[in-house]
Amino acid sequence: MTGIIYKTKDIKGGITAPEGFLASGVKCGCKNNKQDLALLYSQTPSNVAGVFTKNKVKAAPLVLTRKRVKNGTGRAVVINSGHANACTGERGMEDARYMTAETARNLNIPEMQVLVSSTGVIGKPVPTEKVIPGIAKAASKLNSNGGTDAAQSIITTDTTIKETALSIETNQGCFNIGGMAKGSGMIHPNMATMLGFITTDAAVSSHVLQSALDYAVERSFNMITIDGVTSTNDMVLVISNGAAGGNEIASEGDDFEVFKQALTEICTRLAVMVARDGEGATKLLEVKVTNARTENDARLAAREVTSSDLVKSAVFGKDANWGRIICAVGQSEAVFDPEKVDIYIGDEQVARDGGQIDFSEERAVELLSLDHVLILIDMKEGSSTAVSWGCDLTYDYVKINADYRT
Amino acid sequence: MTGIIYKTKDIKGGITAPEGFLASGVKCGCKNNKQDLALLYSQTPSNVAGVFTKNKVKAAPLVLTRKRVKNGTGRAVVINSGHANACTGERGMEDARYMTAETARNLNIPEMQVLVSSTGVIGKPVPTEKVIPGIAKAASKLNSNGGTDAAQSIITTDTTIKETALSIETNQGCFNIGGMAKGSGMIHPNMATMLGFITTDAAVSSHVLQSALDYAVERSFNMITIDGVTSTNDMVLVISNGAAGGNEIASEGDDFEVFKQALTEICTRLAVMVARDGEGATKLLEVKVTNARTENDARLAAREVTSSDLVKSAVFGKDANWGRIICAVGQSEAVFDPEKVDIYIGDEQVARDGGQIDFSEERAVELLSLDHVLILIDMKEGSSTAVSWGCDLTYDYVKINADYRT
Repeated sequence: MTGIIYKTKDIKGGITAPEGFLASGVKCGCKNNKQDLALLYSQTPSNVAGVFTKNKVKAAPLVLTRKRVKNGTGRAVVINSGHANACTGERGMEDARYMTAETARNLNIPEMQVLVSSTGVIGKPVPTEKVIPGIAKAASKLNSNGGTDAAQSIITTDTTIKETALSIETNQGCFNIGGMAKGSGMIHPNMATMLGFITTDAAVSSHVLQSALDYAVERSFNMITIDGVTSTNDMVLVISNGAAGGNEIASEGDDFEVFKQALTEICTRLAVMVARDGEGATKLLEVKVTNARTENDARLAAREVTSSDLVKSAVFGKDANWGRIICAVGQSEAVFDPEKVDIYIGDEQVARDGGQIDFSEERAVELLSLDHVLILIDMKEGSSTAVSWGCDLTYDYVKINADYRT
Repeated sequence: MTGIIYKTKDIKGGITAPEGFLASGVKCGCKNNKQDLALLYSQTPSNVAGVFTKNKVKAAPLVLTRKRVKNGTGRAVVINSGHANACTGERGMEDARYMTAETARNLNIPEMQVLVSSTGVIGKPVPTEKVIPGIAKAASKLNSNGGTDAAQSIITTDTTIKETALSIETNQGCFNIGGMAKGSGMIHPNMATMLGFITTDAAVSSHVLQSALDYAVERSFNMITIDGVTSTNDMVLVISNGAAGGNEIASEGDDFEVFKQALTEICTRLAVMVARDGEGATKLLEVKVTNARTENDARLAAREVTSSDLVKSAVFGKDANWGRIICAVGQSEAVFDPEKVDIYIGDEQVARDGGQIDFSEERAVELLSLDHVLILIDMKEGSSTAVSWGCDLTYDYVKINADYRT
């Protein structure tokens, strides 16, 4: 992939693992006695890029942030959980702007350098009387080890916090990249939303940063599904402050490839954490499509399989019935010949050339009992591969989503 | 819609309600001691039209029938349940052809006039040693009151048989139209499939018949969803034998409009029966989108709402939370302004202009407790309407689909 020799190492600290980033998480009172407001701040001017929901219903903070990200620069992100500030009309836009203005005032930076993100109940105004004092508190608590506190403050129905970080060594030097996410599917009725925030001390121009983020998200966050729902508030942001030193990556080339792959790795880790934490999920479902005609075909097919309620129920029930799998592949837009398809559960082949073969039911049930179930689909059409992640569909998914308000 | 005065009347008999059609249903031994083979026969040469699954994985009988339907004529349909004859390779094609040849021989008609349809387990060959004798038995039992027996023989996990018929009186004369269907979603692991068979004694040219069926299916079978899965065997066939007398409808005009609307009514009734019988379903969910820019926008939005696991779980749990509904609409490809959308549960308005309003939670829960739940979405964009039908997502859906083979 690249001529540069490099190695990667897991490090601690999440979004504050890279140099020059501070973060904090506080209780502002929106989620009774839980941390519900996070602040992320780069000590130096930074470049930003973002990917946003394709849902036509867009929350006010997302509309505002998307506009500001287009400028390519930004130094702070304020995130509240408990209220999505979606379907809140003009008042919602004013509240979102107010949050960024207060953040800017507390940090003494221009308002345009502040981004905002929200997750929680749709349709109710953000209680600014709680959030605004919370911002001052969060600003006063910013510190270089605040990543985990921030990660804790952005979750809603998540059962675990989601953060990760990597150090990357190349023959040009070293840089770090860290991230946090929230999401367990568009799940709890209005406690929706998948959010991802990534920091890096590599110096990357905003244009190249956007291109790397598009690449990474396409292969990570866009390849997970809990219940097929896209929220009003979904966003992934990446901030690059260049604190690691070195020349800015401003065009394609070896440096860009290294950074892009590292960013993809971080995004994939976060995405898999979200998939594994799918509401009611008892296991992670990984679907790999190999030897597809094109990468897009592979992606379409893999995503259709992790999205299938039938496959998801079968995985919950440990049913190695490959008919549901090939049926889901056939429902996708992928171009392939059904009579060539081989299917495996883990390492046990269950279908060949689109047809029945003898296989060990016992071994298949064993493999379906693992907390990480792998389905492999070999299309025998070309050489492209894609992976999608999801989870099983369980009684608890229905329970959690049926019983929310009653 | 048309200048012709006409009235419609519900009649009994399903697919044998129209003149000149015989049917039967027998036990051939594929589904232990249950009826599992149906035969439908027109006493005179007939025109046919069909709509087939878009899944790229297509069962052998479907491939064969689709080819024969292109000729525009056909007099008999043989349908077996228990085996889908899908993913069965060359042997599957031979078996499908064999079934039509034996049906033709028993009825003394050309093989090309016989269509075949299957539903059941994927990947296992049809046991022809049982099905072929079954065909002879079914042929010997053909009778003009056999519609219900046939409807009984094509179901798999369905909890009820699905048949309906209408008599239509116009100032040009009278005709009848009847239908039967099976399907409770692509549901029981490999007992998949939605099938619909419609008969009419109106005389309709095959070209016009196809055009009317396309119109009807687009507004009926294509507007229902149980779990979003399209099976390898889905098909809807319509046979017109002209036994009611009168001129053949061979072009657009008033007669065509009357026939098209009657066919749409029959298809809609059958489709709603399928939706209501969704696996594990406790209620029928009807989603109506009004005042959309185009009919296509209305359809896309309505279908997205009935397909949303979150909405379906909420309906099961009687949760009047409109955020999930507007979020599903926003996820569709429909063009609309979220800030104009009004949402109703039954007659209780729960959102206005895409935002929160006060409404009676008590009344909403009452309306969500009915066994037919109506969600109305007013886009206030244009004048087009569409309706989609589905069902709630329940513990039993997961249970049925998780526990099938274990």
